[in-house]
Amino acid sequence: MVIAALGPEGTFSYEMAEKIRKRGEDILLFPTISSVFAAVEKSDARGIVPVENSEAGGVGETMDGLLLSECLIVAEYLMPVRHHLASMHRAEKITVIYAHPQSHAQCSRYIESLGVPVIHTSSNSKSAKEAAAVVGGAAITTESAAKIYSLPVLIRNIQNSPDNTTRFVEIIKKPDSQKTAGEGVSVTGRLIRRSEKCSLIVDPMENRPGLLYDILGIFAKYKLNLTKIESRPSKRGIGNYIFFIDCETDAGYGEVLSELKDISLIKELGCYQKAEV
Amino acid sequence: MVIAALGPEGTFSYEMAEKIRKRGEDILLFPTISSVFAAVEKSDARGIVPVENSEAGGVGETMDGLLLSECLIVAEYLMPVRHHLASMHRAEKITVIYAHPQSHAQCSRYIESLGVPVIHTSSNSKSAKEAAAVVGGAAITTESAAKIYSLPVLIRNIQNSPDNTTRFVEIIKKPDSQKTAGEGVSVTGRLIRRSEKCSLIVDPMENRPGLLYDILGIFAKYKLNLTKIESRPSKRGIGNYIFFIDCETDAGYGEVLSELKDISLIKELGCYQKAEV
Repeated sequence: MVIAALGPEGTFSYEMAEKIRKRGEDILLFPTISSVFAAVEKSDARGIVPVENSEAGGVGETMDGLLLSECLIVAEYLMPVRHHLASMHRAEKITVIYAHPQSHAQCSRYIESLGVPVIHTSSNSKSAKEAAAVVGGAAITTESAAKIYSLPVLIRNIQNSPDNTTRFVEIIKKPDSQKTAGEGVSVTGRLIRRSEKCSLIVDPMENRPGLLYDILGIFAKYKLNLTKIESRPSKRGIGNYIFFIDCETDAGYGEVLSELKDISLIKELGCYQKAEV
Repeated sequence: MVIAALGPEGTFSYEMAEKIRKRGEDILLFPTISSVFAAVEKSDARGIVPVENSEAGGVGETMDGLLLSECLIVAEYLMPVRHHLASMHRAEKITVIYAHPQSHAQCSRYIESLGVPVIHTSSNSKSAKEAAAVVGGAAITTESAAKIYSLPVLIRNIQNSPDNTTRFVEIIKKPDSQKTAGEGVSVTGRLIRRSEKCSLIVDPMENRPGLLYDILGIFAKYKLNLTKIESRPSKRGIGNYIFFIDCETDAGYGEVLSELKDISLIKELGCYQKAEV
């Protein structure tokens, strides 16, 4: 078996793939999240993709992948995000810091305290690579990327929030039998057990006052707890949205799906065991 | 007067600042969106920041700036986003493309059709700069960045969606008199005219089933149309959200604010004329 993930080696996605890798499983790295989705769609590989971060919010490329691909979410994982300052040099000799823009934002307080210019890179792994090649260079990077480029970790856990967490989902190709489903029938085609979670996309197809309220009213009627709602552009023009909803599943889930389908287009993304925080 | 915007020259933010610049006004460019907010907070400059894109969704750094700073939105602008392929070389001689990850995503179909490797950069301006320095290099970039680096534009409007639009907001420092407001009184301290829009952040402070439904119910009760709702991490841990809401204002706005304040924390971001699509 193969796990598809965003590369290069040393990124958080790579670390997550390493963590869930089973004996004998290979990790295949891709340059973009959308190419991870494409690989999963046309093979038996499972994919691991970041879906939201507790500081930075939703990962747009993953949400677009869930919208556009025929993949199913089968599991979720929570990963604590730890950023480190790594350099060949002592702290007082550092003259430039390499950082991915999101890592920069997540470590902004520590970086400001250093008073050293920051150069943005395209990945945490690239930050370590650049820092290793420059006199006075330091990187905001991951444990594994620092190791790959032989950079000593000078200061650990420099992120603003000690609770910084990224939620990953595991995706597989949607089995053919689940590509269509009738009214009120879950595409996951199995009994929704208690304490599970389901993810779906609700596309209202129009923009009338109170529509989102009506949609949420269906969940409220059956007392299903929403654990997340995030709007995303429908790509039909500015001001036009679809909604990514995660909810805890319970007895009424089939009825909720059926009533939602009366007023909107629904794409079921999968049901899975809830990860413990 | 000064307009603060995200730099360097040649980015879409820079082009937007150019567009609204009045005679005699200077444009001051900053390396990050949060430094634009910081500059506006401690000066009389007005700032211009991108808040959402019709393809890529909300701009997290701007939403964080609105949450954390004492700035007020006083206007919104819609800008059509046009990406171009620019290079010193003829199309068949191109061997590498430089692109910002978001521009790559927004032009993915055209780029895939070229079948040439893509290197990610930290801005559309940087893409043009890199492409100009490399044999066989091309950039996905803006009109103005291509001009700055003397790159001929080979193919115009290569973005996936012809309606690709970015919404910018103009921000100013919140006047002292408006930093506190009583129950049901808008911090904008003026009559809300018809056909205007107001932006606010709703922080439920807790996570109980049906809470978002109750919040939206208040808008529905007074028949105020929501033009946007977007969840963002509260930064109090994963699964804990606040909501950015834009609504059209009407007679009931004061009552809506007052009832919202009974069940959540409210931050008013400003009221302004709605931009025409």
